[in-house]
Amino acid sequence: MEDLNVIKIGGNIIDEEPMLSSFLKKFASVTGKKILVHGGGKMATRMAEKMGIPQQLVDGRRVTDAETLKIVTMVYAGYINKNIVARLQSHQCNATGICGADGNSVLAHKRVSTGTDFGLAGDIDSVNGQWLKSLLDQGLTIVMAPITHNGQGQLLNTNADTMAQEIAKTMSGSFQVKLIYSFEKAGVLMNVEDEQSVIRSLNPASYLELKESKKIFAGMIPKLDNAFAAIREGVKKVIIGKGEDLGNLLNGKSGTTISHE
Amino acid sequence: MEDLNVIKIGGNIIDEEPMLSSFLKKFASVTGKKILVHGGGKMATRMAEKMGIPQQLVDGRRVTDAETLKIVTMVYAGYINKNIVARLQSHQCNATGICGADGNSVLAHKRVSTGTDFGLAGDIDSVNGQWLKSLLDQGLTIVMAPITHNGQGQLLNTNADTMAQEIAKTMSGSFQVKLIYSFEKAGVLMNVEDEQSVIRSLNPASYLELKESKKIFAGMIPKLDNAFAAIREGVKKVIIGKGEDLGNLLNGKSGTTISHE
Repeated sequence: MEDLNVIKIGGNIIDEEPMLSSFLKKFASVTGKKILVHGGGKMATRMAEKMGIPQQLVDGRRVTDAETLKIVTMVYAGYINKNIVARLQSHQCNATGICGADGNSVLAHKRVSTGTDFGLAGDIDSVNGQWLKSLLDQGLTIVMAPITHNGQGQLLNTNADTMAQEIAKTMSGSFQVKLIYSFEKAGVLMNVEDEQSVIRSLNPASYLELKESKKIFAGMIPKLDNAFAAIREGVKKVIIGKGEDLGNLLNGKSGTTISHE
Repeated sequence: MEDLNVIKIGGNIIDEEPMLSSFLKKFASVTGKKILVHGGGKMATRMAEKMGIPQQLVDGRRVTDAETLKIVTMVYAGYINKNIVARLQSHQCNATGICGADGNSVLAHKRVSTGTDFGLAGDIDSVNGQWLKSLLDQGLTIVMAPITHNGQGQLLNTNADTMAQEIAKTMSGSFQVKLIYSFEKAGVLMNVEDEQSVIRSLNPASYLELKESKKIFAGMIPKLDNAFAAIREGVKKVIIGKGEDLGNLLNGKSGTTISHE
């Protein structure tokens, strides 16, 4: 099977113009098929402030009321998505930007409230892998904004990490998928204070050992549990590290690589 | 050659929720290949006001400074484009929303200033008909936002009428193209005060006659000159009328039809 890289970048890269610029240049030069999933960054929050729309965060997640959905649709699927595409084009990387409504690529449902009501937040039901594959087969790079739809005309705000993971899982039916989470740290750290303490590789057994001996920073556990879930569902490798170091993440010279072995 | 409908809608439909809703339902039910080109409406102007960004119009055209470009990218390529797509999906019309940067579909250059500097306004250089055709051939309907790019990483604000026209001309190489301009009036009127005075058809000879006898409202002349230019460059028919009446426009029962004959 052919290789496919699914690369997720977050606000730490999107908000810093020189970092974004350098990342996009590196990303454009990665050979082979690739999908970029981007988060939002601070622009949506700043826009909401300017427009006088109060924002509510619960456990770091945004509560998406109707006005907030308007803003994230504009900022994520409009401003950020189209600027990334235009800049990839300038590096001779022919990209197309889409959200989950486009080509019915990611179908979701409004999150069922269990205590906190997250409003118009979407939990993913299915990814249209056939269409994404057809875009990739035409030589296009896909730039995905973390907005989904419910098939009944409603857009929904979806977590970009989850979006990348679900896409990676579905595409594993047709490709050998590497899922790269770009992150503000150099990888999964043994000691959260020490950037040199990157754990270079994790497999299910070594992860269990580290978890049981409480050697892993608790904040990383949900991310890692998700990474191992992706591996169990067919993703070949999950790599976590700094997006600025994209080349080395892809060839295994830096970051943390999560796999079966 | 197969038929293709290129349909342009403007602010009069986008700004009126019941009208938009009814239009999208009709549009979704149009059989065969189709491209929807949408303008912006009043939302960009309202957003600019809320954010304290002064807007300058010269002869009805927006001067696009950097902050205004951000807003139109967000509103046109984000909010409006993705909402239209999600709603078409709910009517079982599989659509994808793109702007000119996506798949390098519409390449433009910054308008050369001749007196008025329109800022980041884009004049179209080329349309990537091959890619648009490949999307249509996959059974997708294209929803196009009037934002283009210059190939060097810069997005540009482009007039939606021009965008529709350039797409229709390029696609005429592969399809029998009808270009439909949806409009606030029932068609080209003999008497601008009388909605019943629709001129049902125009060809180059009858148009010249009406122009010479000054029987056509002067405000329509640039639109009609463009329509005849499209016909000369391969577009089969240009139809001007009310979008609410889409079915009758397409089957020739209402509006003004512009063709060779």
